[in-house]
Amino acid sequence: MDALHSQIFLPVEKMPKNWLNIVPSLKTKPMPLCLPNGKPAPFEVACAVFPKDLVLQEYSQDPLIEIPDFLRERYVLANRPTPLKRALGLEKALGLDGDKIKIYYKREDVSPTGSHKGNTATAQAYYAKKQGLKGLVTETGAGQWGAALAYGCNIVGLDCTVYQARISYQQKPGRVVLMNSYGAKVIPSPSNQTEVGKIYYNKDNNHPGSLGIAISEAVEHALTRDPANYRYSLGSVLNFVLLHQTVIRQEAKIQMEMAGDYPDVVIGCFGGGSNFGGFIIPFAKDKIEGKKPNLDIIAAEPSACPKLSRGVFRFDYGDSGEKAPIAKMYTLGHNFMPKPIHAGGLRYHGAAPITSCLKYDNVIRSEEFKQIPVIQSGLLFAKAEGLLPAPESAHAIHCAIEVAKKAKENNERKVIAFNLSGHGFFDYVAYQMLIDGKLENYELPQSEIDKNLADPSMPQFTEPDMS
Amino acid sequence: MDALHSQIFLPVEKMPKNWLNIVPSLKTKPMPLCLPNGKPAPFEVACAVFPKDLVLQEYSQDPLIEIPDFLRERYVLANRPTPLKRALGLEKALGLDGDKIKIYYKREDVSPTGSHKGNTATAQAYYAKKQGLKGLVTETGAGQWGAALAYGCNIVGLDCTVYQARISYQQKPGRVVLMNSYGAKVIPSPSNQTEVGKIYYNKDNNHPGSLGIAISEAVEHALTRDPANYRYSLGSVLNFVLLHQTVIRQEAKIQMEMAGDYPDVVIGCFGGGSNFGGFIIPFAKDKIEGKKPNLDIIAAEPSACPKLSRGVFRFDYGDSGEKAPIAKMYTLGHNFMPKPIHAGGLRYHGAAPITSCLKYDNVIRSEEFKQIPVIQSGLLFAKAEGLLPAPESAHAIHCAIEVAKKAKENNERKVIAFNLSGHGFFDYVAYQMLIDGKLENYELPQSEIDKNLADPSMPQFTEPDMS
Repeated sequence: MDALHSQIFLPVEKMPKNWLNIVPSLKTKPMPLCLPNGKPAPFEVACAVFPKDLVLQEYSQDPLIEIPDFLRERYVLANRPTPLKRALGLEKALGLDGDKIKIYYKREDVSPTGSHKGNTATAQAYYAKKQGLKGLVTETGAGQWGAALAYGCNIVGLDCTVYQARISYQQKPGRVVLMNSYGAKVIPSPSNQTEVGKIYYNKDNNHPGSLGIAISEAVEHALTRDPANYRYSLGSVLNFVLLHQTVIRQEAKIQMEMAGDYPDVVIGCFGGGSNFGGFIIPFAKDKIEGKKPNLDIIAAEPSACPKLSRGVFRFDYGDSGEKAPIAKMYTLGHNFMPKPIHAGGLRYHGAAPITSCLKYDNVIRSEEFKQIPVIQSGLLFAKAEGLLPAPESAHAIHCAIEVAKKAKENNERKVIAFNLSGHGFFDYVAYQMLIDGKLENYELPQSEIDKNLADPSMPQFTEPDMS
Repeated sequence: MDALHSQIFLPVEKMPKNWLNIVPSLKTKPMPLCLPNGKPAPFEVACAVFPKDLVLQEYSQDPLIEIPDFLRERYVLANRPTPLKRALGLEKALGLDGDKIKIYYKREDVSPTGSHKGNTATAQAYYAKKQGLKGLVTETGAGQWGAALAYGCNIVGLDCTVYQARISYQQKPGRVVLMNSYGAKVIPSPSNQTEVGKIYYNKDNNHPGSLGIAISEAVEHALTRDPANYRYSLGSVLNFVLLHQTVIRQEAKIQMEMAGDYPDVVIGCFGGGSNFGGFIIPFAKDKIEGKKPNLDIIAAEPSACPKLSRGVFRFDYGDSGEKAPIAKMYTLGHNFMPKPIHAGGLRYHGAAPITSCLKYDNVIRSEEFKQIPVIQSGLLFAKAEGLLPAPESAHAIHCAIEVAKKAKENNERKVIAFNLSGHGFFDYVAYQMLIDGKLENYELPQSEIDKNLADPSMPQFTEPDMS
């Protein structure tokens, strides 16, 4: 492949017309979302939290779900289909023989808000508007999700309120301005706007916050302020979120066919599981169905928050404040407070139920990486490919580099594909700290995980109470 | 046109194979670059400053200059051809009848460094490398140019040193990190590294600096440190810079043909003239040749620095320190210190000689706009099109909006095209200040311009001394 053809564009006519629902193909199925008493959340309870069509999608058993025409148009306006790129620069920097080891990446960084999050944000906003709601409330860590939902709500004309972990609100002002530009209201969390927020805020009005606390605040806000007209919106973890993200890999699969390749290794960084799921699901399906039994699917985790690698597959709350539903997932415990790594989007204690089932069934595996080598790989990628990646995406890049190096050592042929989930223009501080020699690695002792999982606040049931 | 087809992509095979040199078509021709004594800079003097192939391009009379294959490949790796987009969202926000008034924009924001500057940066780095040089030295204001040259030098393996106006160095740390990521050395200017820098630095070691001072420092550095191996690089103004930028409009012209339209009005923001020139030159050629006599070509200037609108067409230095060559151009005087508008890339006292000739011959015209309405239009664009524009580009957007509104009032049919020269992710402070009500308008009194132009340091000759 020459440089002139190393960006593979998909004609708009070939953009997927359906989302791909992997649930019917899973061996181990996701458990229903539960209430603290262990009973599955009734349909009407779920619909008080989320827009109704999304709840229907959450439990759908249809293998394909049609993407409304309105949304396909919005996807195009948000720069879909995104390019797939052969990483010729990175291959050269690693001294790879391009006939033997090839690296491809999907470019979700080209979206208006700079990450893959818009794929579900515009969908969630669309269904909320269709239902006649007035607005959505959500939380965000680094701000990729908050910016995407602000963008999505702006398109359809909905109010958008975002609770953002205060540390990120202060450290990444660019994303706050981006959210404001789209008309969203951004509140640093913990705040004095909610009961759950006040628990933390009244002790320390400069509390750095966490994604877990911000979720609790957003859920409380949505359920108590004007519950007839507002719903809560979540940017990862849930089945319907991963469903919407499958546009990524469906496009990429056709683009790889156009390039004449099928990957041996598929990699995504792993926070809650949305970019990972969206990127790997159509391939996981091929593996489950026996078409590609040897396909290696890797979730690249930060060692500061290795839920798939070192968490336990059990029921847990989605948030610190125990306001969100309980899901069966790989978790480090909902009270776990990850160290302040720059990949803020990966600082979540749990793994999406779908990805948890895939891990449990050994369809996917995970690897954990420390911050310094990850950001070093991000910088290598910037030099080699010209694109400054988000610290989250740098985990996928680092994993891909490790796989490529090993294949080179072993003189193997290998086609590697990863998802570049976003750019790092708002996260430049991570690179600055690396260049200045100020970046830290964080170790997570097993004892801390064990302590969190043994906490009495953890849900104690192991099966939903179907009585 | 429906939303699904509102992004017009150009197949890579249709990417231009030549740059378009408008000099042979101009009625008023650019004067040669001169020395302070009024004599044209001899070829060998120019070659001591710039790489030789670029000097040859500066004075070329060939209407077409071939783009080397290596560069066409680098253009593709830097996301060329860029999309042309029909601004359906903006048209809707302005209440336009899309059958009567259409707005298109060329998306130079999609490049790896976020602006059009890479089109000439990679070319300049390529020719420097071809000549066997070790590196390039340049200056930058807001950092779009510095980031692009750092990117270009990194690709071919050249050293890159960037003198950045200190105020921007401090206010836009993201672009500093981006330059560092590509391996460039960034020095806040004025510095104590050059004689000309020390004049300012020794009075105030926190002097905010200006583009004019930074140019002087970069030229001195290139000419005195290791003159056999280093050259100076300039990101605007010169003929060869505008030449390289003509890829923009050549692509756009084909893309507009694909859309079935030819514009009535063509708009670019105006700093030194590089994105403007690159965008309008192939159209200016049609106008000069009588094919489109009524085409309206508008340079959108900040009222804080309106060199085309209120400057004088005469010989002047390219820099404050009088180290750079003297060019005949519309100028506000090389000692002019523009107010600190957020559109740092438009804070230059002179206009590219080619664009100056076009203005003098009434092929183009200019309009000046104040900062607050410009940034308001940028924000409107962000909401309507989803893309946060650079404050520089917001001038073109604002001008396009004004033209569209007037056409609507007058019930005219109008096709408007502008260049979105870059994104505003590193310039979010401008939007933050607007939202917070802290943004200022700046008036430029005519007396200040008159005073600068009457300064005895201005070159006094009116014709080159050909003796």
